[in-house]
Amino acid sequence: MSNRYPHPEINDLPEDLRAKILEVQDKAGFVPHVFLALARRPAEWRAFFAYHDALMVPESVGRTSNLTKGDREMIVTTTSAANKCLYCVVAHGAILRIYEKKPLVADQVAVNYRKADISARQRAMLDFAMKVCTASDQVDEADFQALHAQGFDDEDIWDITAITAFFGLSNRMASVTGMMPNPEFYLMGRVPKSPR
Amino acid sequence: MSNRYPHPEINDLPEDLRAKILEVQDKAGFVPHVFLALARRPAEWRAFFAYHDALMVPESVGRTSNLTKGDREMIVTTTSAANKCLYCVVAHGAILRIYEKKPLVADQVAVNYRKADISARQRAMLDFAMKVCTASDQVDEADFQALHAQGFDDEDIWDITAITAFFGLSNRMASVTGMMPNPEFYLMGRVPKSPR
Amino acid sequence: MSNRYPHPEINDLPEDLRAKILEVQDKAGFVPHVFLALARRPAEWRAFFAYHDALMVPESVGRTSNLTKGDREMIVTTTSAANKCLYCVVAHGAILRIYEKKPLVADQVAVNYRKADISARQRAMLDFAMKVCTASDQVDEADFQALHAQGFDDEDIWDITAITAFFGLSNRMASVTGMMPNPEFYLMGRVPKSPR
Amino acid sequence: MSNRYPHPEINDLPEDLRAKILEVQDKAGFVPHVFLALARRPAEWRAFFAYHDALMVPESVGRTSNLTKGDREMIVTTTSAANKCLYCVVAHGAILRIYEKKPLVADQVAVNYRKADISARQRAMLDFAMKVCTASDQVDEADFQALHAQGFDDEDIWDITAITAFFGLSNRMASVTGMMPNPEFYLMGRVPKSPR
Amino acid sequence: MSNRYPHPEINDLPEDLRAKILEVQDKAGFVPHVFLALARRPAEWRAFFAYHDALMVPESVGRTSNLTKGDREMIVTTTSAANKCLYCVVAHGAILRIYEKKPLVADQVAVNYRKADISARQRAMLDFAMKVCTASDQVDEADFQALHAQGFDDEDIWDITAITAFFGLSNRMASVTGMMPNPEFYLMGRVPKSPR
Amino acid sequence: MSNRYPHPEINDLPEDLRAKILEVQDKAGFVPHVFLALARRPAEWRAFFAYHDALMVPESVGRTSNLTKGDREMIVTTTSAANKCLYCVVAHGAILRIYEKKPLVADQVAVNYRKADISARQRAMLDFAMKVCTASDQVDEADFQALHAQGFDDEDIWDITAITAFFGLSNRMASVTGMMPNPEFYLMGRVPKSPR
Repeated sequence: MSNRYPHPEINDLPEDLRAKILEVQDKAGFVPHVFLALARRPAEWRAFFAYHDALMVPESVGRTSNLTKGDREMIVTTTSAANKCLYCVVAHGAILRIYEKKPLVADQVAVNYRKADISARQRAMLDFAMKVCTASDQVDEADFQALHAQGFDDEDIWDITAITAFFGLSNRMASVTGMMPNPEFYLMGRVPKSPR
Repeated sequence: MSNRYPHPEINDLPEDLRAKILEVQDKAGFVPHVFLALARRPAEWRAFFAYHDALMVPESVGRTSNLTKGDREMIVTTTSAANKCLYCVVAHGAILRIYEKKPLVADQVAVNYRKADISARQRAMLDFAMKVCTASDQVDEADFQALHAQGFDDEDIWDITAITAFFGLSNRMASVTGMMPNPEFYLMGRVPKSPR
Repeated sequence: MSNRYPHPEINDLPEDLRAKILEVQDKAGFVPHVFLALARRPAEWRAFFAYHDALMVPESVGRTSNLTKGDREMIVTTTSAANKCLYCVVAHGAILRIYEKKPLVADQVAVNYRKADISARQRAMLDFAMKVCTASDQVDEADFQALHAQGFDDEDIWDITAITAFFGLSNRMASVTGMMPNPEFYLMGRVPKSPR
Repeated sequence: MSNRYPHPEINDLPEDLRAKILEVQDKAGFVPHVFLALARRPAEWRAFFAYHDALMVPESVGRTSNLTKGDREMIVTTTSAANKCLYCVVAHGAILRIYEKKPLVADQVAVNYRKADISARQRAMLDFAMKVCTASDQVDEADFQALHAQGFDDEDIWDITAITAFFGLSNRMASVTGMMPNPEFYLMGRVPKSPR
Repeated sequence: MSNRYPHPEINDLPEDLRAKILEVQDKAGFVPHVFLALARRPAEWRAFFAYHDALMVPESVGRTSNLTKGDREMIVTTTSAANKCLYCVVAHGAILRIYEKKPLVADQVAVNYRKADISARQRAMLDFAMKVCTASDQVDEADFQALHAQGFDDEDIWDITAITAFFGLSNRMASVTGMMPNPEFYLMGRVPKSPR
Repeated sequence: MSNRYPHPEINDLPEDLRAKILEVQDKAGFVPHVFLALARRPAEWRAFFAYHDALMVPESVGRTSNLTKGDREMIVTTTSAANKCLYCVVAHGAILRIYEKKPLVADQVAVNYRKADISARQRAMLDFAMKVCTASDQVDEADFQALHAQGFDDEDIWDITAITAFFGLSNRMASVTGMMPNPEFYLMGRVPKSPR
């Protein structure tokens, strides 16, 4: 399906998109497809990545969060697996492995987070995220209390909710437009990083 | 639940948020709660409304779309009902009634869009949107063809997908944070507008 | 679909049906479509409305009930929404608004009764009704106890069950035969009643 | 649970109920529990059995139907199994075996009607009934056409719908009130009837 | 569908299969179809029945179990009904009636095990088996504790799990290959055994 | 949970189990946990691996099959993901990568086989396997024809069915007993094999 929505040429993009994409390429060594797939529509691209950064890199918007980088990627990988989004499971699973420094954890949460080698706190976080993902209309007071019992406060719960909700958007865009993960993601974080 | 996430005072908000909110208030006669509920986090607010406008007001970003304003609100109302999001069904149902000039259509698509008094083209649009909403991993070539047969092109399909995906995000935020629709929405578009 | 099962002429109906329908018309100002749609088969019509009245107007059969008129219509509106029955949600939502004197409550319970502005007692009543509606085989002792804790006795529980079950019948008849709500219902109870 | 709703004494019942129940007892050799379980509320009892007879014994209300007695009981047994109603599957399964003169058919349709030894016409009838039972909001024109192709007309389809809907009511009442099938039903129609 | 996979002639089978099948025929008075349906592939047949006997006849492999023969057949009948496997429900329902000496129990657990006339211990056993059957990924510590509370130990839980899992295999083979129960099974255990 | 069912010592096992396990260890470089987890019960172990080999290594029982080794592992990985079985997805995903010589394919089919880079023939095979896995009672003639159209014959369909059914058993055993994949599996087939 992906050829319905061909990627634009980087050089044809507005300068702000081009700059950000080249920066990512420089850092990662490749351009993750999501940056090009969404660039067909610059206004949506800008909103998407602004939202992404506000949630996933809170310090970039002057905010702190009790969720670690690993926590955040774990939410993304787990709920994207529930939505069966190939792009997000593979791409964010890679980042999860790196942040958690656990080469096995992404496959574990993607297949069955209940069996994953994670903390009780992370398990509670994923139980909540999965309810937001699949039955948000039923989230209730007891769900908040279960997170409070693990040390999360209401701002953290907003974070869990918003990350799950934002990647639910991302999952649907990726699945319908046929976005495929870059081959590089599959192996990232599984083996020691080779020097570049 | 809504008192977990109290609305900020308008006057305490960053200037750009304040200006936009006052503009909306001036136009609508009240401030829809979503503008205040999300304003607690200005960076997320900015991204949310930028994304919203890029999809729902395409001309605001220099883009045209074959979807009418009514089509777009119909997608929002129908998929928000599937997600059982009270805020979005009531608020966007109101706008749908106004744009379509059909006082009954919002209740119809919210309860069972298959029984609604809409065109075959709109029915196909909603069938697709509902699949994006509930089973995006299964969207396939046949789904695209069903829309092409009704005159939609691939850009329109991107629009349907993105609107459904974006409001899936919005639905989850509203349900979990306990966002309640303003009372004004319930009656809008049901009776002739009284002069102000 | 509704033209598969055309409404009979009132004057062609058996006298008892005709009398009841004219009485309803006189009281409501219009004939709700269900009275005509089912009248094609007078024997079924008589049983349907006898059952309806025995449950919804208990005093008409010499019985009292702890459920208020509003409670009963709330059960109907909520479970009919679960069954996606356009006719019953719109028609009984109208009556619910009137009995509860709450212009917003019908839309609330139809979209997500968990978010509705109702009492804890009504919430428990709807939890039970929804289980009867969607998983009656799993109703067990704990469900009875949850209602007892809210002051309902076993006769009230019979009422909740029977109302849910009866409108499950009604929902299926309305959806399959394409029964459409009268336009009058959509606005009833939303605005102050105008003098006739 | 059944002791929440004890059966009344036959002699304490209103005369019309008592007469009908004694007539059934005389014919069947025992009183099926549904007659006693519902008799606690005579008005509902009368409506229930009037509705039942209008659908299941159409000639009793001066109507003919293209559905055979066996067809009707097959619909009841199959959809009651989908609703997991012990009383109705066992009681109507017994009657189905007798009417169809097929000792195996009730168990077959109760477990998996797709594997039952029935006609293509009956298979289509059950496909429709199951859709009415589990997804009545999605019944559409194609479903009608599939039945027309097997020789059913719109009146027959009304019958299939109404029987399914009525026993959906019955299933919910039986499951919630804990109605248990009389032991006699389990064996009826499996072995040659012994002389009385 | 069953004629896709015709039964082999008994005399054409390898000697060990032939001997076992004749032994079963001698004991039961007929050859249950599963013995012939799977015999098309002797290696699979041998593994299937070796596994079957290791679980269902533990003493045959030098093992004891706290599950009775009736318990085991009850698990098979209940979970096979959840999988809608006609062959296994009818065949194992028959054996269940015989072992439990309860002519009604098989129909009860097949339709709705929550309403069956069984012990609290058996109810807990079936709750666990049903979770293994339909949501094995969600089985957790609390499920083990519920069984411990009824006197089951971890070896018994292994038995419940393995029996459910094995018949899940059997159910799928029987449904896809169109295996039909022998007519003899339908009546077994319902009436006193006639002398042969 | 895995410590409920501790692995036996290899040297305490019956000779045939010990020999097979040492052979596997010699070939793979480690002992896959399934060999030890099931060895607690030798009779079940023998039946399990006999069944496994009859299906997955048909030539070992003198049979040929049109399914390739890669096809078979693809069925296992895909359906085990549907059952959310961590052990089987990781272990058989590894073998799948090796047989198909495609380092990305296992992650693809585990997350969403509809998006995987596989042949149309394999896609049809997986569609069928998934129906056997999740709705075997609904498999019908049209499903057989879809496979015939891709060149599969009825014996191949038996294979697809039996492999899916057998690993459904395996998935349930692994999930309930808490079987965890050996760490070695996660990386196998992703990078060129290092010389030993």
